[in-house]
Amino acid sequence: MSSAPPNPLAVSLGDPAGIGPEVIAKCWDARKDFHLPPFVAIGDPRSVTAVWDGPIEIIDDPRQADYAFDVGLPLIQLNSAEADTPGHPSVAGAHCSLDSLEIAVGLARSGSAAAVVTGPVAKEQLYGIGFQHPGQTEFVAERCGVSPGNVVMMLAGPTLRTVPVTTHLPLAQVPQALTSALVESRGRAALRGLQRNFGIPEPRLAISGFNPHAGESGQLGTEEAEIIEPAIAALAAEGWRVSGPHPADTMFHARSRANYDAALCMYHDQALIPIKALHFEDAVNVTLGLPIVRTAPDHGTAFDIAGLDRADARPMAAAIRMAATMAVTRSEGA
Amino acid sequence: MSSAPPNPLAVSLGDPAGIGPEVIAKCWDARKDFHLPPFVAIGDPRSVTAVWDGPIEIIDDPRQADYAFDVGLPLIQLNSAEADTPGHPSVAGAHCSLDSLEIAVGLARSGSAAAVVTGPVAKEQLYGIGFQHPGQTEFVAERCGVSPGNVVMMLAGPTLRTVPVTTHLPLAQVPQALTSALVESRGRAALRGLQRNFGIPEPRLAISGFNPHAGESGQLGTEEAEIIEPAIAALAAEGWRVSGPHPADTMFHARSRANYDAALCMYHDQALIPIKALHFEDAVNVTLGLPIVRTAPDHGTAFDIAGLDRADARPMAAAIRMAATMAVTRSEGA
Repeated sequence: MSSAPPNPLAVSLGDPAGIGPEVIAKCWDARKDFHLPPFVAIGDPRSVTAVWDGPIEIIDDPRQADYAFDVGLPLIQLNSAEADTPGHPSVAGAHCSLDSLEIAVGLARSGSAAAVVTGPVAKEQLYGIGFQHPGQTEFVAERCGVSPGNVVMMLAGPTLRTVPVTTHLPLAQVPQALTSALVESRGRAALRGLQRNFGIPEPRLAISGFNPHAGESGQLGTEEAEIIEPAIAALAAEGWRVSGPHPADTMFHARSRANYDAALCMYHDQALIPIKALHFEDAVNVTLGLPIVRTAPDHGTAFDIAGLDRADARPMAAAIRMAATMAVTRSEGA
Repeated sequence: MSSAPPNPLAVSLGDPAGIGPEVIAKCWDARKDFHLPPFVAIGDPRSVTAVWDGPIEIIDDPRQADYAFDVGLPLIQLNSAEADTPGHPSVAGAHCSLDSLEIAVGLARSGSAAAVVTGPVAKEQLYGIGFQHPGQTEFVAERCGVSPGNVVMMLAGPTLRTVPVTTHLPLAQVPQALTSALVESRGRAALRGLQRNFGIPEPRLAISGFNPHAGESGQLGTEEAEIIEPAIAALAAEGWRVSGPHPADTMFHARSRANYDAALCMYHDQALIPIKALHFEDAVNVTLGLPIVRTAPDHGTAFDIAGLDRADARPMAAAIRMAATMAVTRSEGA
């Protein structure tokens, strides 16, 4: 760390039967190699002891993690109705994962924690207990008093950051969902996020086309001329450094990536294929547009390998490290 | 080269005002570093001398290139009606690029050349002189007596090969164009191509989904269940090693790539984003389904940098090298 964040980070364990507890414990184990700042995990300690035999330090307040972090994995204790078996999610576990998220967000909102890093949850389990949000991101937005429409997902790796304009939609519905207003607002949120969270005063945003060869002057589609170009013009008129629409296939090689700070992409796979091809082990899911810093590793609960000591802790470590860097950037910019 | 192809390769210069002549001359210059087998260029020598001052050996038959290759760039001479200025395409240049392609294909069909490598042409210029094919691939297919519907484009790099099921279509039209029969026939052509051209006896083909998360069990689209899964089942029933539909965003990291020999993708950018992100300098465009071997560098004429000595010869070198390897594989398998 170049400089430490003002407070420890709050890390929700996610679903107790998933790989969240394991990768967070492994992060504490390898905290020096991973260059991790003090953090506190929030969840049921039994979900950790089921998969890890290291020391746990039960604490009440994130600030205690500054001292406890050298001794054991600092943990704010939640008591689930029952202890889950790794790989076997339960209703009790779903409640526990939601409580963990709620407390972690509250700690960050109050300033006790410098940022929130969220462990992976099982959405189907959460829906089963009445969870009304599409995912953790929208829940966090609501708790922060921000409309879900104003938060933006960014995937950030060491040499590439991408922001999808549309996310979890059937691809055939994307042409109807794409509007100039949407491209413009997502682009603006990405640019502001680069300033605020990444400390880039004049960020450069490369905006992709939708069609092959970015439509090849209209011969391969009209979304570029009708939707994307007006949005680019509007952002440029505000003084932002934007370029495009670029053919998506030639945007992501090293020499292209050097020309921008983030790529705004029109649909899920256009943004996620390149980030995962290049940075599978250390791509971080960052939520922009929140009053708090929130990151997450870009993987799921992986119930199939939970409890087998096979989970890779590098994505979680990358999420913790990036949250810390962003917290420092924001505290310095404040 | 582990073993040399039976004959020299035929390389068409492409548009004389583009970067084709420059990158082919640079390949001869660096033939030892690039590990290139003997090849003969076909085109107007003035397009080469305009951008390069190395030696040219005018020959009549590709077999002479075996000897001439040590002395200079072997070239079968075409006389264009006028000498083009680099960066300024002309009608005469379009005729010359088409003649060059025609002769190169003829030499490969007759067996005088072991394979064809095609330099980049300007399609708009070709259309202007009455060229009726969408691109060089379809022209080559016709000259070989193969229906364009039965040839398949593969993008091949050192650690990834991808085959798009659909190519130059507006993305909004892809859902209508995708059929089980098309996925199946493209998949079969890819599998046969892996056997015949790459010498893989039991090739493994990973087939992508169309929607985010491969449709997430129908919640994010139905193309997987309705179109892609039946095609996979049909190929599997024939005994091919196929898998999928896979979420496209998690198909292209190193650990995933180790599980297949080629990825069959549903649309242009799904296939081209990962190959160009990972292998921009050495991805090769390979045409499968032809009686001859044909490769091409995966770039265009780049008129904007023609004549400035800035063109990167590595893609052309990769295309020549791969054509040679494929020619050896096919001659050994024959």
